[in-house]
Amino acid sequence: MGGLVYGYITNFFTYETTKSVVVKSWSVGIINRIVQLLIIAYFVGWVFIHEKAYQVTDTGIESAVMTKVKGFGYHHNRVMDVADYVFPPQGAGVFCIMTKLIVTENQFQGKCAEYFVHLSTFSTFHLAFFLSLSLTTGVITGVCLKSSNETKGQCEIEGWCPAENDKVKVEPMLDVKNFTIFIKNSIRFPLFNVTRGNIPPTMTSHEIKNCVYHPKTNPFCPIFHLGDVLSYTGQDVTDLGGEIGINIEWKCNLDLNIEYCIPKYSFTRLDAPFAKNSISKGYNFRFAKYFKTENGTEFRTLHKVHAIRFDVMVTGKAGKFDTIPTLINLVAAFTSVGLGSVLCDVILLNFMKGAEQYKAKKFEEVNVFSVIALPGSLLSLKTAMKSSGDSGAISLSASDQAL
Amino acid sequence: MGGLVYGYITNFFTYETTKSVVVKSWSVGIINRIVQLLIIAYFVGWVFIHEKAYQVTDTGIESAVMTKVKGFGYHHNRVMDVADYVFPPQGAGVFCIMTKLIVTENQFQGKCAEYFVHLSTFSTFHLAFFLSLSLTTGVITGVCLKSSNETKGQCEIEGWCPAENDKVKVEPMLDVKNFTIFIKNSIRFPLFNVTRGNIPPTMTSHEIKNCVYHPKTNPFCPIFHLGDVLSYTGQDVTDLGGEIGINIEWKCNLDLNIEYCIPKYSFTRLDAPFAKNSISKGYNFRFAKYFKTENGTEFRTLHKVHAIRFDVMVTGKAGKFDTIPTLINLVAAFTSVGLGSVLCDVILLNFMKGAEQYKAKKFEEVNVFSVIALPGSLLSLKTAMKSSGDSGAISLSASDQAL
Amino acid sequence: MGGLVYGYITNFFTYETTKSVVVKSWSVGIINRIVQLLIIAYFVGWVFIHEKAYQVTDTGIESAVMTKVKGFGYHHNRVMDVADYVFPPQGAGVFCIMTKLIVTENQFQGKCAEYFVHLSTFSTFHLAFFLSLSLTTGVITGVCLKSSNETKGQCEIEGWCPAENDKVKVEPMLDVKNFTIFIKNSIRFPLFNVTRGNIPPTMTSHEIKNCVYHPKTNPFCPIFHLGDVLSYTGQDVTDLGGEIGINIEWKCNLDLNIEYCIPKYSFTRLDAPFAKNSISKGYNFRFAKYFKTENGTEFRTLHKVHAIRFDVMVTGKAGKFDTIPTLINLVAAFTSVGLGSVLCDVILLNFMKGAEQYKAKKFEEVNVFSVIALPGSLLSLKTAMKSSGDSGAISLSASDQAL
Repeated sequence: MGGLVYGYITNFFTYETTKSVVVKSWSVGIINRIVQLLIIAYFVGWVFIHEKAYQVTDTGIESAVMTKVKGFGYHHNRVMDVADYVFPPQGAGVFCIMTKLIVTENQFQGKCAEYFVHLSTFSTFHLAFFLSLSLTTGVITGVCLKSSNETKGQCEIEGWCPAENDKVKVEPMLDVKNFTIFIKNSIRFPLFNVTRGNIPPTMTSHEIKNCVYHPKTNPFCPIFHLGDVLSYTGQDVTDLGGEIGINIEWKCNLDLNIEYCIPKYSFTRLDAPFAKNSISKGYNFRFAKYFKTENGTEFRTLHKVHAIRFDVMVTGKAGKFDTIPTLINLVAAFTSVGLGSVLCDVILLNFMKGAEQYKAKKFEEVNVFSVIALPGSLLSLKTAMKSSGDSGAISLSASDQAL
Repeated sequence: MGGLVYGYITNFFTYETTKSVVVKSWSVGIINRIVQLLIIAYFVGWVFIHEKAYQVTDTGIESAVMTKVKGFGYHHNRVMDVADYVFPPQGAGVFCIMTKLIVTENQFQGKCAEYFVHLSTFSTFHLAFFLSLSLTTGVITGVCLKSSNETKGQCEIEGWCPAENDKVKVEPMLDVKNFTIFIKNSIRFPLFNVTRGNIPPTMTSHEIKNCVYHPKTNPFCPIFHLGDVLSYTGQDVTDLGGEIGINIEWKCNLDLNIEYCIPKYSFTRLDAPFAKNSISKGYNFRFAKYFKTENGTEFRTLHKVHAIRFDVMVTGKAGKFDTIPTLINLVAAFTSVGLGSVLCDVILLNFMKGAEQYKAKKFEEVNVFSVIALPGSLLSLKTAMKSSGDSGAISLSASDQAL
Repeated sequence: MGGLVYGYITNFFTYETTKSVVVKSWSVGIINRIVQLLIIAYFVGWVFIHEKAYQVTDTGIESAVMTKVKGFGYHHNRVMDVADYVFPPQGAGVFCIMTKLIVTENQFQGKCAEYFVHLSTFSTFHLAFFLSLSLTTGVITGVCLKSSNETKGQCEIEGWCPAENDKVKVEPMLDVKNFTIFIKNSIRFPLFNVTRGNIPPTMTSHEIKNCVYHPKTNPFCPIFHLGDVLSYTGQDVTDLGGEIGINIEWKCNLDLNIEYCIPKYSFTRLDAPFAKNSISKGYNFRFAKYFKTENGTEFRTLHKVHAIRFDVMVTGKAGKFDTIPTLINLVAAFTSVGLGSVLCDVILLNFMKGAEQYKAKKFEEVNVFSVIALPGSLLSLKTAMKSSGDSGAISLSASDQAL
């Protein structure tokens, strides 16, 4: 009984290791080591050093953006300040700076001539067509106005009158190029609970107020000269407006000092993918200011605003050493080194002189096919074993069993 | 000395490969190949082809959305245009389209009767209760107004007067169903630096202006008919307003032609998770237009706006071939194929006829337990080795070598 | 012919398994099992249970946030309601609540004295300096005004007049601390198509309307008391305004019941990373209300708003069992257990008594170096094989068997 338990224990505390064949051959040995070297170099150089496969990464960056525009512009014989030309005023991450304003003053609800459509005759077909396109500035009543002078053949619309004429020529407010944009961006990587801001703590209040961003000389200044931003994107969008993306990229290796976790700014034209389509050039929107006459009738001033829209987009990736990816990649590396021997085996067993000898050494055979092929015929050879290329071995071992 | 170096070098350029036992048996052989086939099929079919484990994926999509609504609606005997019913006007990715407006005109600061609360008696308890709920339209002064007619037992409030009565019955602006929404969405996958827009470059300006999105017949048209969008979500939210999500999904396999990287639109009701709670039906907000009387007193018109809020949400995933995931998965695949032999070993060594013979062939024993068990007793057998069941094999193979 | 095919088939249906050396030794056996135990414990405990490496995760959360503020405040002898103090009014995820208002009434376009700059002399240098800083409230005309009394040595500006004096002392609206914020957040994990809302379906309408969020006693109430939120961040920002982040974190293990997929709220001060910079204390922006005189001249009231800006930021991660990560990690685990034998081999072959004997058993040598070293000299020894250093070992073991 005690012997049985002892037997189990001794069986448990055994150590099993593979039996290896060591081939002492220059050619195979050198090929083997070169293959191993290449695999190790790939893993060390590319997987671990370049791709940082030992890190766990966090791409779910949390970001808050605050913006503030400064500058004055002349437009329509007025001095425009921030309260006039920035939409919305709260300083969000997406904001618009007006470049051109088409104002239609004193609109009242009523019926009037449409500016857009100039036709000598007007049919139901046209009516349906214009309605479908929503090209008018109000609801078409179906009445055709035929005044003698310039407004020949216009449609009558119901809505805010007089109708907007947005074909009028207005000079853009070129002063926008002198405006500055201050961007405050604070981010957090929730996985690592790391918080960073886009203004280096070493910058003094005076430095921040007086600097202007430049990709080479002043890459951490949070104040951007609008003219510069436009030139970085290679666009002049002051006439019709446009959409500019200000990308703040945070690529942080948290294994290094946190001070190296810094923002990188880049500027793109967001409507670039639509360059091939000839539609919707520029960027514009309409808004109205509402007023009341003395007797309480509401009227409005309609503004068609051509603007540059800025989207501050924050992307980020942080990596930090972690045992799980490290271990998985290490195991992959070790196993890959082992897989190199597959190649060497193919060479050794097929293309080398003495391949048959290697085969004989590497493989031992246990042949039971005969049993299935000839069932019952040779009971004494029930499990005929053959250590291929060493036939005698088997006969002895068989007799050994027979004892 | 030179011989020693030569010895080191020859020792280094050796090739070590595992010694294998080849079992020629129909049953084990077939089981082995079937298990291997299943593992390979799983890896090729599921891991590589279906799950694209050979790709590195980027989910940190960068997106900019621009929207433009078109259409006219009649409400409160007025024609409403975009400047009247879209909030905010800038055409952001999140915007509201008014469906119903409850207007409280000419509010001045002062004291007046509360519309909401109709009580015959008024106590401090009620005061605290209403204050805590913030259900009133102003600060309750504590004075109880007891007028003879319909405004019996109302509280007096201080604030903008007259108080808002949002229980008034207003017909929703059903024209919203005929409005159209134009969505321009440009995205970028920062990892691969791939930029795409939601309008196919092959669409002409004329096609874009005249198309209407339809999931089957026109899936790439960027113009959405509002009534269709509502019907896709199975909701009629024109009365109380609601929140609709327009999801643009970019699933891009960048190993294929970039032209296959196209958006897929879907529409959901965002307040669906709150369906079980009977609170906050619909969607509404309040805003005010401010006016001044001739003598400079400010007054306002309060608007309670029931609106449909649209959230254009962009999600995306791009995959591209990369050596690291490919290699790690390939190694996992190869190793898994190898692990299949564990199963076969269990069968071979336990359930097959002649299992003892296999064991004898597979395992060679080195027994040092006796040494520990009987220390010093048998010094000559210090490391008693036993080439289990095939002792003869070695001597023979040795003699084989000697030939 | 048939025999050849039969041969191919029998060769295919063979089963190859590594030949193993079983070492029966207490020391190596125990070390081996301990190493294996540690590796298994690491994988089971850390990789699988703690890090949930058997799951595929989705971090690309889709989120829609709707907010509603309630409460009344006294400011400038007025009762302020939601329409007055929330910007923008639509109830977006990013919104501002006014705490202090500096009003500059009745501004008309024209020329007037600058409030900000008080200089006895005025030079071109100053002009350039102020222009560069955009510190003025209008365009400096270059004219220096030298009035006899208090406005001594001011610059003249062109723009909206009178100029804003934002140095005026205004008491903040402390009532903001009694305001409540209602947050409705619906999320979706696109990978698993799981939709959740931040209000538990078990809460009744009455419960929701009357609760106030508390991290311990009421963690799922969607109504936040503004004073509490400020105290959670440890900040009093009612004077100059500030930026508060309300983070909603969704960490969902979708292998469990979906009811466990619940939000977790946390509150941070977003401008914390800028604490070391002494710039841009607080948060403020300017907006204007526009009016018209009887004769049609536009004038405005400029508002400098100090506000608390709230950013509701939603982050999330959902995990669900998936075969691919499970398999890859299982393979890594199995292979790692195998790699444990590398350590044991080192011990066995170098530090154990009888290491030479083990080596002899583990390694079989095929030596072809001699052939290359002495080409053609010993043809009979072309592939001299030697079961290295273990000739005696074998004979012993052989005799051992024979016993």
